[in-house]
Amino acid sequence: MIGRGWTQPGGRPHAEAVALEQAGSAAADATIYVSLEPCAHESARGPACTDGLIAAKPARVVGALTDPDPRTAGKGFDRLEAAGITVKRDAMAVEARAGLAGFVTRITQRRPHVTLKLATSLDGCIATADGSSRWITGDASRAHTHLERARCDAILVGAGTVSADAPRLDVRLPGLEDRSPRRIMLGSGEVPAGWEVIRNPEAIATLDCNSLIVEGGAQTASAFLRAGLVDRLMLYSAPILIGGGRPCLGDIGLINLADAHGQWRLTDSRTLGNDRLEVYEAACSQA
Amino acid sequence: MIGRGWTQPGGRPHAEAVALEQAGSAAADATIYVSLEPCAHESARGPACTDGLIAAKPARVVGALTDPDPRTAGKGFDRLEAAGITVKRDAMAVEARAGLAGFVTRITQRRPHVTLKLATSLDGCIATADGSSRWITGDASRAHTHLERARCDAILVGAGTVSADAPRLDVRLPGLEDRSPRRIMLGSGEVPAGWEVIRNPEAIATLDCNSLIVEGGAQTASAFLRAGLVDRLMLYSAPILIGGGRPCLGDIGLINLADAHGQWRLTDSRTLGNDRLEVYEAACSQA
Repeated sequence: MIGRGWTQPGGRPHAEAVALEQAGSAAADATIYVSLEPCAHESARGPACTDGLIAAKPARVVGALTDPDPRTAGKGFDRLEAAGITVKRDAMAVEARAGLAGFVTRITQRRPHVTLKLATSLDGCIATADGSSRWITGDASRAHTHLERARCDAILVGAGTVSADAPRLDVRLPGLEDRSPRRIMLGSGEVPAGWEVIRNPEAIATLDCNSLIVEGGAQTASAFLRAGLVDRLMLYSAPILIGGGRPCLGDIGLINLADAHGQWRLTDSRTLGNDRLEVYEAACSQA
Repeated sequence: MIGRGWTQPGGRPHAEAVALEQAGSAAADATIYVSLEPCAHESARGPACTDGLIAAKPARVVGALTDPDPRTAGKGFDRLEAAGITVKRDAMAVEARAGLAGFVTRITQRRPHVTLKLATSLDGCIATADGSSRWITGDASRAHTHLERARCDAILVGAGTVSADAPRLDVRLPGLEDRSPRRIMLGSGEVPAGWEVIRNPEAIATLDCNSLIVEGGAQTASAFLRAGLVDRLMLYSAPILIGGGRPCLGDIGLINLADAHGQWRLTDSRTLGNDRLEVYEAACSQA
């Protein structure tokens, strides 16, 4: 290993520039592994990574995924090959698309990748009939949620949840406190200091971020599902029955039961303390 | 292996008598394995198995579980030892209690062992808002349900389900059709031919059977949970969202959310086609 880099906070320099600077002249005849095709377009923010790679004269470039950005979209790999570098394209496309889901969704859908988090009893409730919801899931599930928050750019709840719970929605994991995402409120009403507000799910396209986690309540979750704007479901379920409690979802626009099938595929399932986490991806997700 | 037997339909002869008849004189000095302590009491229906075992003069008896029936309750093992036979008691007590849950519950609780089956969407619904429920779970889950029916003595649904769905509730698995359980309706109203009826969950004590599966609907499920008469939950969940549908449970008498915890422990989890099955046992179950 002669150099290793990743794109820096704010987006520049890109990973390739960081790694090439570490490697220096040792990059000549080396193999370079990239999780995404190097950008082929210069911008006001910096040179094209493809040019930097060509200048470094590696023998081979292994790329996990072709850049979905139409400004690159294979042109980076093409130019490397034209310069005599051996190129392996899309070496781990499935894995890279999962790891880069936020970026890929933003490029292809022009909106952030959306994760809907639900934490329910076995009978699908998020609170008792009188509204008590502390706690349904346990410590391990809540710690896992904080980790997911740290991986997202923004977190969204409905105006009802803001006024009822005044949630902090920050990351309370040692060493990751500064990874707390932007806080977004859906709806109208008083917006807490430091929060942003959008009026409808479609307005996430204006947020200028890669990844959003929607944490509740039921109306907000349902609004995102009704709009077809959920890419991933994270379902935490506690081994309890509530019975006659508040359901995790309201109307999501389903008319025929048959249409509910084939929409979600299970991609992860794990035990968190006494709880279960199941992760489903939208079957039609581009990411 | 010189003989192998199990208790015959109707309850007699007992397993030991069947196996000893097969083994004949070869049983002398052999080891005999029994899933339940041999009965120590003669009855009008047959001799005590303990006497049969002593007469066969085995060297050793390995018993998985002491009989909870107070008429035996260790007396069978005691008498074998007094006759000079080496006895290992409770060799697989946990496994035997699970396998004999119906019998054990009937002896210790004076009622059948009750399994509550729920088949829901990920958001805990058993039907859409307009009542459509065909189908939520898939073929593999429904076949598994039929297998569970074949293992039970009786199956119960509420009067509402009877009038709305006129369910057959039979076992439709090749070779197991004759294992269809007795059909019980909870509530009042017209009782289909061949069905039995009880007025409240507590009346299961009068059914004179070992195992009962409760299959719906939500009111019936909730009535059994409210009465504390569910030993096992079988939760089939399909990877679909309904949203605003009919919840799988109504009021189960929960007042404080904290009291919901610690009631159920996961004992099995499996994939059935696209669906998940999770089995929970009541934490306080005697079986």
